[in-house]
Amino acid sequence: MLETDLPTPALVVDLDAFDHNRSVMSEAWPGTRLRPHVKAFKSTALARRLAEAGHVAFCCATIREMEGMAAAGLGEDLLLANEVLDTHRLGALVEAGARITVAVDSDETIAAAVAGGVGEVLIDVCVGLPRCGCPPQEAGRLGDQARTAGLAVRGVMGYEGHVVGLEDRDDREAKVAISMEILTKAHGDVGGEIVSGGGTGTWDSNRWITELQAGSYLLMDTAYAALGMPFRPALSVLGTVISVNRPGGWAVADVGLKALGMDHGNPSLAEPQGAKVWFCSDEHLTFSVAREATPVQVGDGVRVVPAHVDPTVAYHERMSVVQGGKVVDTWPVDLRNW
Amino acid sequence: MLETDLPTPALVVDLDAFDHNRSVMSEAWPGTRLRPHVKAFKSTALARRLAEAGHVAFCCATIREMEGMAAAGLGEDLLLANEVLDTHRLGALVEAGARITVAVDSDETIAAAVAGGVGEVLIDVCVGLPRCGCPPQEAGRLGDQARTAGLAVRGVMGYEGHVVGLEDRDDREAKVAISMEILTKAHGDVGGEIVSGGGTGTWDSNRWITELQAGSYLLMDTAYAALGMPFRPALSVLGTVISVNRPGGWAVADVGLKALGMDHGNPSLAEPQGAKVWFCSDEHLTFSVAREATPVQVGDGVRVVPAHVDPTVAYHERMSVVQGGKVVDTWPVDLRNW
Repeated sequence: MLETDLPTPALVVDLDAFDHNRSVMSEAWPGTRLRPHVKAFKSTALARRLAEAGHVAFCCATIREMEGMAAAGLGEDLLLANEVLDTHRLGALVEAGARITVAVDSDETIAAAVAGGVGEVLIDVCVGLPRCGCPPQEAGRLGDQARTAGLAVRGVMGYEGHVVGLEDRDDREAKVAISMEILTKAHGDVGGEIVSGGGTGTWDSNRWITELQAGSYLLMDTAYAALGMPFRPALSVLGTVISVNRPGGWAVADVGLKALGMDHGNPSLAEPQGAKVWFCSDEHLTFSVAREATPVQVGDGVRVVPAHVDPTVAYHERMSVVQGGKVVDTWPVDLRNW
Repeated sequence: MLETDLPTPALVVDLDAFDHNRSVMSEAWPGTRLRPHVKAFKSTALARRLAEAGHVAFCCATIREMEGMAAAGLGEDLLLANEVLDTHRLGALVEAGARITVAVDSDETIAAAVAGGVGEVLIDVCVGLPRCGCPPQEAGRLGDQARTAGLAVRGVMGYEGHVVGLEDRDDREAKVAISMEILTKAHGDVGGEIVSGGGTGTWDSNRWITELQAGSYLLMDTAYAALGMPFRPALSVLGTVISVNRPGGWAVADVGLKALGMDHGNPSLAEPQGAKVWFCSDEHLTFSVAREATPVQVGDGVRVVPAHVDPTVAYHERMSVVQGGKVVDTWPVDLRNW
């Protein structure tokens, strides 16, 4: 089947670009030095490709992602890099034979890990992003408390999410250093062998961690592409022009905001070339092409590049994997919802 | 089961508010004068409640919505209020006994309706929103052409989507009038008994149409709530506080941007009272409460009100229907994807 025969909107992955991205990252962060972030792709079929390349330790953002990975036989070392209270669902995975580690950042989340039957934790430390993670000065005490409660403390994690998207490289590097000095100090207080952190945006500047939590590099999006990294755009949404308004100078494709993550703003159009996005509605993308360009016709294909990969993938049931214009595989997006 | 026992994030519908909204609209637009827009809720269980109240004609935005409605026995009069080219899927619904009408706005979409075996169409007219719909001066010619091609032309539709969200009521009413004069003239050129249009924002100001296409009024969102209409907020996402950073003054709940439509911006927090949303990440909502308010604790519940209902619902598998704090029903969101 040709990709142009796919019913639209269709989420497609360029296999060559994907393999390129996977291999560039694997060279810098081989094996379990990389802990790919499942939230970026929500697909066990995609995860299996990473496992086959030696990346058998994963991190997840939701319990559903953990459950799906374990059920798919990818439960060798699963980290829930997030705080949760309904830990009994994780305990069930431990009983079924998966290795489960959960992030904790408070007395309550430590108690929940114990109550749910999760035996291993990382102390999550706030390194500057106002989100989860304990204040750094609390890390040592929480580590002690977790051990007292019978948990194995594998180390620390801290995500410099306020830094990964900074466009100026020097600025990014300087701020990674500040965040990672905080995490390194917390690690000294906590102990354990793991220092987990980072993301696609700091893949080559974070030298403090023992394992990198990155996911976006595989599929990429326009936000990360602006940072000038060696990863190629591998994800797009194919659409069809369903309406052309010649007097008005605009056309409409069937790729709307229900097929796109919109928190980073409007998507871009890779095809037709020179097209300008006006706005997205639920099931529509209104755009124009330059007057000197070839006029768009009803039935033409378009290729939309989302501004943010993760919430885009979460809207779709499957990714069609494409090589040289042919659909060579289908990866179900089987880890959606919670 | 209490709503507070639901695993979070959980999409919940307040049944009393929903019934209030349904009944206010039914009084103004009874029976088939209302053509509820399925895209706003994507659930046949919810649609069935409308059908039981006499609203047996629906409109949809995607072929999947049409297929699901027909399969659920709700195919008495289904309008695809959108242009499509892969009409063979609609033709299959006609063969299975559903009444299917599709919007057309070009020679190509008329040809597709014929080729796909769809016998009935509306001529979609652009009334000011730069999206689908033919230029008004084309409507008569397209109506003639559709009839020549053997199609039954039931009338016209035109959506004043650029007007429905205008906050100033006088402004809104004046611009509805301009749009509907365009549609009325096009109807004169096309003929047929249907003039379909409008939305929740113009439910009481659009007096030109024979049927109202409204969906958001049932569940409502913060954008429409700002217009001062009699519809009550009926939809929210319940979450759990998973982290509290006391020195920083923020807390984190497990309702992120993958559980919310973000194109209209950040959601609001209805509970705890006085909470202020800082930002959303994939699976997190960072917020603060006023210093004088009761401090937030890990494990507390939160209630998030999305800025835009439609793309919020499209992220969830189900709506839990709640009355007086108890879960009384579950409506699967069974019409997602395309």
